[in-house]
Amino acid sequence: MSSGFGKVTLVGVGLLGGSLGLALKQRGLAETITGVGRRQEVIDAALAIGAIDAGTQSLESAIRGADLIVLCTPAALILQQLDTVRARVAPHVVVTDVGSTKAEICAHARSNWSKPLRFVGSHPMAGSEKFGPEHATATLYEGCVTIVEPNDDHAVDAHDTVCALWRAVGARVILVPPQLHDDIVARTSHIPHVIAALLAELASASGNVTDFTGKGFRDATRIAAGRPELWRDICLTNRAAIADGLREFGERVDSVRRLVEQGDAEALEQFFRSAQDARRKVLGHD
Amino acid sequence: MSSGFGKVTLVGVGLLGGSLGLALKQRGLAETITGVGRRQEVIDAALAIGAIDAGTQSLESAIRGADLIVLCTPAALILQQLDTVRARVAPHVVVTDVGSTKAEICAHARSNWSKPLRFVGSHPMAGSEKFGPEHATATLYEGCVTIVEPNDDHAVDAHDTVCALWRAVGARVILVPPQLHDDIVARTSHIPHVIAALLAELASASGNVTDFTGKGFRDATRIAAGRPELWRDICLTNRAAIADGLREFGERVDSVRRLVEQGDAEALEQFFRSAQDARRKVLGHD
Repeated sequence: MSSGFGKVTLVGVGLLGGSLGLALKQRGLAETITGVGRRQEVIDAALAIGAIDAGTQSLESAIRGADLIVLCTPAALILQQLDTVRARVAPHVVVTDVGSTKAEICAHARSNWSKPLRFVGSHPMAGSEKFGPEHATATLYEGCVTIVEPNDDHAVDAHDTVCALWRAVGARVILVPPQLHDDIVARTSHIPHVIAALLAELASASGNVTDFTGKGFRDATRIAAGRPELWRDICLTNRAAIADGLREFGERVDSVRRLVEQGDAEALEQFFRSAQDARRKVLGHD
Repeated sequence: MSSGFGKVTLVGVGLLGGSLGLALKQRGLAETITGVGRRQEVIDAALAIGAIDAGTQSLESAIRGADLIVLCTPAALILQQLDTVRARVAPHVVVTDVGSTKAEICAHARSNWSKPLRFVGSHPMAGSEKFGPEHATATLYEGCVTIVEPNDDHAVDAHDTVCALWRAVGARVILVPPQLHDDIVARTSHIPHVIAALLAELASASGNVTDFTGKGFRDATRIAAGRPELWRDICLTNRAAIADGLREFGERVDSVRRLVEQGDAEALEQFFRSAQDARRKVLGHD
């Protein structure tokens, strides 16, 4: 191994791509890092912070000669890029992604790429409401859980390389089948995001209410400040799980509404108490 | 004026009562501070941090000789305490509260107390998911918006004293009619709290998902860690506004669910974009 992961191409150099570039360079784990951006300003910003050595708007030229390609764009773009990459890469190349949804992306690769697969889907759970290379940091992945699809039809070396990549930048790798991943994150991430967006809209519909909002509202809606294209793509590539969860959520909203209308003190207190317990359990405080 | 607000009685010495005691003492604004608690441990904790000079479980004995009485308990208790206080206080006494809902509490005083009213409802918007005197700080009210009901049938000196109290501990006083207050905070505070609790339950229903939760989930659900009795009482004393808002919220959830089911990329992106704008507007960032 000449220099860690060799020639690395980061497709997308925003928060996630830029942070991966910084983390690899800080650790001396890449021979060169080429970044692909759709807009020249973003490429320039990634170059300026030292996340990449070279940048281009051309995916085709950026993947030529690469050893490791990481797709760091919103999910719908990843699906298109998988086709471009598949048609043009050499047999030894390893490809992964950072998409927030996995079932559609991994199924697309499984249907279209030759076996053993050299694309291994991953999801470093390091996102935030921030985006763009200006928020990138070399430490973003430290201690972060990264979901990688289990080795199924994959080339062993490709699967090993993807796991090694995330561990090398400080992440904790967990192997989870793509559909199970999507079903769970629908409820721990995607639906909370949709709901936070709806809370912002509900409050906004009451006019100027700034004086009536505090830290609670700010925290509860923070994720709604996320990038609209990213969340659009998440909804589009995890439709069934998000729609099912939203249906269940709507029913839960209705049942609490009925408790409020009935003024059922005991049931309301029990609801808040069990939610408090549920949160502790979900966050692993027990 | 001998010493600021004279003899002050704090009914309830948790986060809000305890912090008010600390803030008044730090500024030398009370001759003595007596605290009322339902449990001796809480009284002892308030004494230990120096939030009160004396403590008792008896509301009747604590209000004897008081100049200013502040009711710092959950809303349903405040309603009962208003009756106890009304029957026993001297004519010069000023009474206020910190209840998170105002319409029912202020209407109760207006119906039962003699005019001009010496009870003036207030709501310092300083709560958090924390509770208990152990979290009390002398700075809790600094910079905090405090809603006070406009002077309507109130004694002018009582209304002035209540406004002066909150300003003295660093709060920014805004006069808002009780029902308008309740309608707005239903959407900026109460419904976000119910929804955060439901998000915790939805995630918890998927089993052990701790590895799939990050800062986003933690922030979005933080308010669900609040005190169950407090939120029960908020729901019970702001029923119509919370139920109406939850009904509207449920309809909004349904319409986004339909966009997800239809895979309507343009409408989804527009939804997330307008929510992002709505949040900025609500938080006053524009």
